[in-house]
Amino acid sequence: MSRPLFHQITIVGLGLIGGSLGMAVRRRKLARCVIGFARTEATVRRAKARGAVDDGCTELCPDWLGSSDLVVIATPPLSVVPIARQVARLTSHRFILTDVASTKGQIISRLERILPSRISYIGSHPMAGSERSGVEAADPRLFEGAACILTRMSRTSSGALSKVASLWRKVGGRSMVLSPARHDALVAQVSHVPHLAAAGLVLGSRPESLDLAAGGFSDLTRIALSDPAMWNEICRTNRHELKKALEQFIGQMNRFKGLLSSPDGSKLLGLLRLAQRRRRQLRIKGGG
Amino acid sequence: MSRPLFHQITIVGLGLIGGSLGMAVRRRKLARCVIGFARTEATVRRAKARGAVDDGCTELCPDWLGSSDLVVIATPPLSVVPIARQVARLTSHRFILTDVASTKGQIISRLERILPSRISYIGSHPMAGSERSGVEAADPRLFEGAACILTRMSRTSSGALSKVASLWRKVGGRSMVLSPARHDALVAQVSHVPHLAAAGLVLGSRPESLDLAAGGFSDLTRIALSDPAMWNEICRTNRHELKKALEQFIGQMNRFKGLLSSPDGSKLLGLLRLAQRRRRQLRIKGGG
Repeated sequence: MSRPLFHQITIVGLGLIGGSLGMAVRRRKLARCVIGFARTEATVRRAKARGAVDDGCTELCPDWLGSSDLVVIATPPLSVVPIARQVARLTSHRFILTDVASTKGQIISRLERILPSRISYIGSHPMAGSERSGVEAADPRLFEGAACILTRMSRTSSGALSKVASLWRKVGGRSMVLSPARHDALVAQVSHVPHLAAAGLVLGSRPESLDLAAGGFSDLTRIALSDPAMWNEICRTNRHELKKALEQFIGQMNRFKGLLSSPDGSKLLGLLRLAQRRRRQLRIKGGG
Repeated sequence: MSRPLFHQITIVGLGLIGGSLGMAVRRRKLARCVIGFARTEATVRRAKARGAVDDGCTELCPDWLGSSDLVVIATPPLSVVPIARQVARLTSHRFILTDVASTKGQIISRLERILPSRISYIGSHPMAGSERSGVEAADPRLFEGAACILTRMSRTSSGALSKVASLWRKVGGRSMVLSPARHDALVAQVSHVPHLAAAGLVLGSRPESLDLAAGGFSDLTRIALSDPAMWNEICRTNRHELKKALEQFIGQMNRFKGLLSSPDGSKLLGLLRLAQRRRRQLRIKGGG
């Protein structure tokens, strides 16, 4: 048997992403052992039953953390820094730390100030998900074909970076490295603005219009079903880039509005054709 | 055998909607015969091969029209009035006329001026579709569960209205009657603004962001694949209501933008929760 990528992986947070990662790692034998931490006993039990972890408990424990060469924080954005601080306090060995949060700039600038140099941090953002949440919805194939964006600190070693990149590739993803600022700007366009647009479409439709909705509206607004608390954290921790991307989107909507009054129908037609052409080029990836 | 609802139905335009209606009518034996008109021989041949029509040709023919008790115009919005005028000129008998266009106010106000009283017009709008078009994509189950909105002229008889309502119910839809103005206002919210939002999301994302897109973005923007020429006609024939609905949507997006700067995170959270709750109430219907 070939040597696994990691000796022991500890996953803090056993929701959709943490649970799916645990399942994928165990199926592909990418670590000798996967340990999980969750807030409730029930979640730990379900994660074990679903094959997401070998073992787990509800409190971060120094013994388990101490034997891990990779710790993955798989919680919503605002918990990443406090948990990283706690993990640093409970350990004294060298290991790699990553997270899976959808925003990166704010997290990395805070972690740069608090993490000791023995901890190699790489930010991960697997662009995969579902409107469902929790380990019940976890799927070992969730990352297949998904873009997995890595962000590094100035001091992150190439060795650590390539091990985390390798992990995401081995669970089926396409890994790529972006600066935290660029990551936040691009995902604002392709994930955070679309989320708010879906919520806005639902909020802007009267109940009697919703009763008329067809499959198109249903597909368009499915992500409005996602966990509001997590999305609130995502939007707020990426507020600067999200505001810029929202302004661009609002500008585009105003352009459409202006073209409706224009006697020349070919301009709106041209934009709809361009959108169709670009959408055709979209490679469809990511679970959900 | 019970008497079918109609003797002969003529469908002008054998695309996704016309083709699906023909297939559904023939399967359920809702007419003794279904005749189809399309612009090309190839479409007529494909429609016959798919079981959407018993027979058909490429030019509106008085003989076939003359023996029809229902004529359905299943073309994009801007062709409805010219085709209705032609159908009126080629016939002299009493029959019911309907269309399936996504906008109603403009069409009905023009038809009121040109249709002779022997023709009973009822506007239909089955809220079902797909990003695909053409008779190749036709599906006899397309209307199952879909809202089918009927609009009437002041002179439309209740008998004609109830026959058309019955047709849509028998192919699986939920029929309801709305005034043309109310129809146009509600579908602007639930169909036309969402379409422009999907196009705007695609246009507002740089190619390098599109490369990161996950399943959520893909679902959200699928309708941007639909026929741009048809959607241009839909947007332009509903420009007044669409502008109002676009303004509301833009207002909602601006509200989100404002809340990102607010120190109080609970306001954005409250809106995301409300959107989730309303989206959960959405009954999912309509094909595609």
